[in-house]
Amino acid sequence: MKQNVFYAQSGGVTAVINASACGVIETARKHRAKLGKVFAGRNGILGALTEDMIDTSAETAGAIAALRFTPGGAFGSARYKLRGLDKNRAEYERLIEVFKAHDIGYFFYNGGGDSMDTAHKVSQIGKELKFPITCIGIPKTVDNDLPVTDTCPGFGSVAKYVAVSTKEAALDVASMARTSTKVFILEVMGRHAGWIAAASGLAGTTPRDAPHVILFPEIAFDENAFLARVKQSVDRYEYCVVVVSEGTRYADGRFLAEAGSKDAFGHAQLGGVAATVAQLVRSSLGLKYHYAIADYLQRSARHIASKVDVEQAYGVGKAAVELALRGENAVMPTIVRKSSEPYRWSIGKVALAQVANKEKLMPRNFISKDGFAITAACRRYLAPLIQGEDYPPYRHGLPSYVSLRNQPVTRRLNTEFVLK
Amino acid sequence: MKQNVFYAQSGGVTAVINASACGVIETARKHRAKLGKVFAGRNGILGALTEDMIDTSAETAGAIAALRFTPGGAFGSARYKLRGLDKNRAEYERLIEVFKAHDIGYFFYNGGGDSMDTAHKVSQIGKELKFPITCIGIPKTVDNDLPVTDTCPGFGSVAKYVAVSTKEAALDVASMARTSTKVFILEVMGRHAGWIAAASGLAGTTPRDAPHVILFPEIAFDENAFLARVKQSVDRYEYCVVVVSEGTRYADGRFLAEAGSKDAFGHAQLGGVAATVAQLVRSSLGLKYHYAIADYLQRSARHIASKVDVEQAYGVGKAAVELALRGENAVMPTIVRKSSEPYRWSIGKVALAQVANKEKLMPRNFISKDGFAITAACRRYLAPLIQGEDYPPYRHGLPSYVSLRNQPVTRRLNTEFVLK
Repeated sequence: MKQNVFYAQSGGVTAVINASACGVIETARKHRAKLGKVFAGRNGILGALTEDMIDTSAETAGAIAALRFTPGGAFGSARYKLRGLDKNRAEYERLIEVFKAHDIGYFFYNGGGDSMDTAHKVSQIGKELKFPITCIGIPKTVDNDLPVTDTCPGFGSVAKYVAVSTKEAALDVASMARTSTKVFILEVMGRHAGWIAAASGLAGTTPRDAPHVILFPEIAFDENAFLARVKQSVDRYEYCVVVVSEGTRYADGRFLAEAGSKDAFGHAQLGGVAATVAQLVRSSLGLKYHYAIADYLQRSARHIASKVDVEQAYGVGKAAVELALRGENAVMPTIVRKSSEPYRWSIGKVALAQVANKEKLMPRNFISKDGFAITAACRRYLAPLIQGEDYPPYRHGLPSYVSLRNQPVTRRLNTEFVLK
Repeated sequence: MKQNVFYAQSGGVTAVINASACGVIETARKHRAKLGKVFAGRNGILGALTEDMIDTSAETAGAIAALRFTPGGAFGSARYKLRGLDKNRAEYERLIEVFKAHDIGYFFYNGGGDSMDTAHKVSQIGKELKFPITCIGIPKTVDNDLPVTDTCPGFGSVAKYVAVSTKEAALDVASMARTSTKVFILEVMGRHAGWIAAASGLAGTTPRDAPHVILFPEIAFDENAFLARVKQSVDRYEYCVVVVSEGTRYADGRFLAEAGSKDAFGHAQLGGVAATVAQLVRSSLGLKYHYAIADYLQRSARHIASKVDVEQAYGVGKAAVELALRGENAVMPTIVRKSSEPYRWSIGKVALAQVANKEKLMPRNFISKDGFAITAACRRYLAPLIQGEDYPPYRHGLPSYVSLRNQPVTRRLNTEFVLK
């Protein structure tokens, strides 16, 4: 008897997470003999806990195909971390209860390191409770911080957005530097890992080109060295473009800018580091500045997505279904790099236990000795990930992104589940 | 005896000001029998004052053609306002001296209202000094605040960037609202005129769609009404997208955020209004926020330029040369709207005196009664301006923007001119 599939999106969404959903659903539809319907969690895992699921079989093939070029999370995502099995066993048991009620035999969880941990735990408890469930993680994170996989779907498109934006803004600043702004600061995401900031380095190829300074979370902020570098750039080229990671810290571990609040994962809410850096430039060097904060624009910019990233996002969604059909469990498909020039990649796999709750930071040899630039090795790694354009269709001057019907699955349980 | 042409870019650059330069140079090259070389000012008008000009005849046809898709100011622009004839006659006389020394009979000045004033004055003083010079203004401003012309080249592309970004970020916020950010704020340019913020209104078509609140410089900021509107949106739709003009003010005229410094035109340097609005949302409503500041990214985003805008930018550059060849003087080509649906336009002209130092704000009937949205009339006006995509060519995943040789014109004067 064939079983249904449960798919959920987790954590911060990306320009291409829906391309992974598209890969899952289209591939499952091709295997109707073996797989039942694909249900999606409304607001991610919350949809399973509260038995609020979406029946994707109500969507047309055209609507599902359009997910490939629609940013955001089509079914809703959630910042909701299931605690340890010992601390909150009830949540895991609830998931199994809902899966059982809806004949769900497959759980595809599309997220980062936290989500891989959850998927791993669900596979364990399923076994324990004698309701074995096939759990496959699907990698997604703009931060590019999952281990083992060559890159994470979502990252390549942010990388392309940041490299293109840096290149464009630099042309603007260079044009005006004689009489206007000397220092332009672009704040990008990256709480612990500097991959996104690093991608801005692709915008230039010589020391004369922007960005002239990159600030990574991996390198403790040295105010004097930073200011000297900015001054040098302005002296030599008349202007300076700085790209700063939101997670840049002082040597003592404090963030340059901390908004003060914390999210559900206990992470500090960051933002405003650009303003801190800008004030420093003005007070210490007396230079006119401007700053931009890319924030959500960078991770939703499907209009300038990387074609490689879109293909990989779709590929890992498709692979998740294929792995499940081959009887694999508690694994995550990975991107395996076979060659950098030309870029060739294939899909591999890794056990969830090996990627759960792990973070891949920038290796030191990807950052220049002075800490303000990327190295040739980093460039070789990053360059393939932003290759190719994959424009969405437009209507009346705007991308025609899809809105799904998101029809609910009829509930089968009488029990309510109260979220903590 | 044919005379040379002097072309200069002025004020903040745009994604398409080089398309106007392309229109000027390509058209001048077609009329070699009547026109000499096209010299460009290095850093705008400063290049004329300091006799630091660029010989565009040294550029290949391919390089000039590539200006059409290259953002920023290819020859450098300047924030440098010539004062009144009575206050600083020496600067105007210096311009004439340089023009005379280089057989320049045509002055094309590519800028906003300030620049139209300068071009007008140069034409007056030329007559006075018996060195008549043909002065043609070429409209350029992302603010869309020049009168008479239907729109200003540069605006359509910012409008498209802002509308696309609002639509994309809204999909992101909507996906996550249940457990994360409820209020997203996007800060856009617009010191006195709300045209850019208004363009975000194109992202949605129903009250449910983002943006849910637009803050215009033309409407005094009413804190209570604003907070009530944000709360209503979060109650109804689970989230709220706010687009705020940098120039939003309180009823008493103070800007919500003023960085404190002033530029060469005496304008206050703005920035940070998003942070002010965000803090207000958190302190008064206790809602989680995120904000983005588009800053220079919005006006340099050639990768998502409006095709209509690119065509109009090229068109006014071409028209400037044709007007000059027809013996016109002290005029500016304009965009004349013939129909909105479908959008049809032609090129007209207006006397510089009629556009110099004038500012076109949003008419009240383009803003909804409550002051937080655009009206159907505004939408009819704006919609055509973002039509069509005009992607630049890409190489290695990045737009291949041109860098010109910018070879200097040999100096003919022994005099130095010291800028004030």
